[in-house]
Amino acid sequence: EEEEEEALRQRFMAPPVSGLRELRRRRRELRSRMELLIMETQGEVCRALAALDPGAAFAVDTWERKEGGGGISCVLQDGEVFEKAGVNVSVVFGLLSEEAARQMRSRGKSLKAKDGKLPFCAMGVSSVIHPKNPHVPTMHFNYRYFEIEEADGTKQWWFGGGTDLTPTYLNEEDAIHFHKTLKEACDKHDLKLYPKYKKWCDDYFYIKHRGERRGIGGIFFDDVDSPSKEEVFQFVKSCAKAVVPCYIPIVKRHCHDSFTPEEKLWQQLRRGRYVEFNLVYDRGTKFGLLTPGSRIESILMSLPLTARWEYMHTPPQSSKEAEILEVLRNPKDWVH
Amino acid sequence: EEEEEEALRQRFMAPPVSGLRELRRRRRELRSRMELLIMETQGEVCRALAALDPGAAFAVDTWERKEGGGGISCVLQDGEVFEKAGVNVSVVFGLLSEEAARQMRSRGKSLKAKDGKLPFCAMGVSSVIHPKNPHVPTMHFNYRYFEIEEADGTKQWWFGGGTDLTPTYLNEEDAIHFHKTLKEACDKHDLKLYPKYKKWCDDYFYIKHRGERRGIGGIFFDDVDSPSKEEVFQFVKSCAKAVVPCYIPIVKRHCHDSFTPEEKLWQQLRRGRYVEFNLVYDRGTKFGLLTPGSRIESILMSLPLTARWEYMHTPPQSSKEAEILEVLRNPKDWVH
Repeated sequence: EEEEEEALRQRFMAPPVSGLRELRRRRRELRSRMELLIMETQGEVCRALAALDPGAAFAVDTWERKEGGGGISCVLQDGEVFEKAGVNVSVVFGLLSEEAARQMRSRGKSLKAKDGKLPFCAMGVSSVIHPKNPHVPTMHFNYRYFEIEEADGTKQWWFGGGTDLTPTYLNEEDAIHFHKTLKEACDKHDLKLYPKYKKWCDDYFYIKHRGERRGIGGIFFDDVDSPSKEEVFQFVKSCAKAVVPCYIPIVKRHCHDSFTPEEKLWQQLRRGRYVEFNLVYDRGTKFGLLTPGSRIESILMSLPLTARWEYMHTPPQSSKEAEILEVLRNPKDWVH
Repeated sequence: EEEEEEALRQRFMAPPVSGLRELRRRRRELRSRMELLIMETQGEVCRALAALDPGAAFAVDTWERKEGGGGISCVLQDGEVFEKAGVNVSVVFGLLSEEAARQMRSRGKSLKAKDGKLPFCAMGVSSVIHPKNPHVPTMHFNYRYFEIEEADGTKQWWFGGGTDLTPTYLNEEDAIHFHKTLKEACDKHDLKLYPKYKKWCDDYFYIKHRGERRGIGGIFFDDVDSPSKEEVFQFVKSCAKAVVPCYIPIVKRHCHDSFTPEEKLWQQLRRGRYVEFNLVYDRGTKFGLLTPGSRIESILMSLPLTARWEYMHTPPQSSKEAEILEVLRNPKDWVH
């Protein structure tokens, strides 16, 4: 058992919020298994990124939430390969108001509270990777689990998550590899999942005022509580395990590509759109900014190191810049 | 009359939305006088800025709104002195839903519509000036007028506006000059206005998730419809006329100051906060992004050319960076 504990310790970026002993004690509970999964995902992704950027290192911050729980934020900033890479784990619990609980569910189900308050637990791993080279796309993923206890003792639970890619320039081979890897992870569980969650992703990451998507998509789902807790967990696990294989080969392929100042400038303009989506539309960010006691630096870790806004910038017709814009305006199916 | 028309033409950046002839025809109406004022303010400010940045020129775009009205956007980008300076006039009219009309009033008064629709007219001049040199502050102003006609024919009207300063570093002399000039403009009308609108400004430009104000304030007011249309218009006119004298001397004083790369970096981080305020909190921006038919490029003109977000950036104690943060957290009275 001590060996097992030591092995886990080495795979994690920091001790888990709930403590290793406690997690072992209640190891059959889904909460514990999910916390181990998000810790393991954080470790896997950070190690894979750090291996590609040997000069840089992840800063690891563990933080506590006054109202209950805490988290571990790992950030690599201004590296050779990555401009800003953040991988954040949070495990928080406490009491929610009925209003806040309703907002957490995308379907807005109402929940019955005891004395107006609902005991809840929310945990997840979330990450945004902004590389330096404009030929390496930005990647985002997030996998999360919620539990809320109603007045009569019944527990509501659900999972949410997704992985999506935001390239500065379109590379079809990369797009196909990314979507194919995600599709394979989904298909192991149910052939209906990939098409459904691919569309959800295109719909969710929509910058309405620009008429563009943030990127070329991937998968996105929220509020999933069927067919069973175990089956959804196994699906989420497959998705989390797919993060490294869907993204890292793309980084390796392009991180030494040469690029021009004009390509860097276009990347900076696209970073501006990323900021617009995250600050204006992203539910997680908005929810985080409004939640008392949330750790702002971990939420806004998703913003790029630098971004740019030019008035009336329009790429010339038939340019590489116009090519990606076309795909952001009219999403494509990358795998069938 | 033709001479008078020609004189106006030369003072404006483009022909007014309503046409000079039409404005002359209904010259006694407040709508016309306000449109002339915002056109004149746009011209004054653009000329004053252009005189300080002789290598650069304002691009002037006139645009039409399908649903009624249009505007004139003047933008100077990547100049020697100004990173991005935008001065926008818009004069729009048409029909509003009761819901949209309610949202336009900060006090959320309800209005009685005929067949669910309210004829409205909204006009204003708004501007954000982001200079290159970190010792020259960013300045924003906006003066606007609304009219809505209710079912029984009564016209609701109100003014809104303000001018505020966002320095990268604190310069007390500049802060006092800026607030003093605004106070003088207010005091000509009512001694109660400056203290009231100074506080409103500090309250409005609050970045809640950071616990900071966007800048060192100025004046801000909304939904003002007393003591009388004429008196409020005269007050708004004094404020609009104060824009050049409150800001231009500060630009002149510092636009040739030397600065270090570290000072430029701090400016870029502050630009990031500017983006956070505008995209997360600013009512005008949010309203614009949600309004069908609004001109996105004119709304997002307020965003800086470049911005930066570093994870967990904290300036050292007693540094110049900590000094301005202190004032952003605890606003000061600059004039008594």
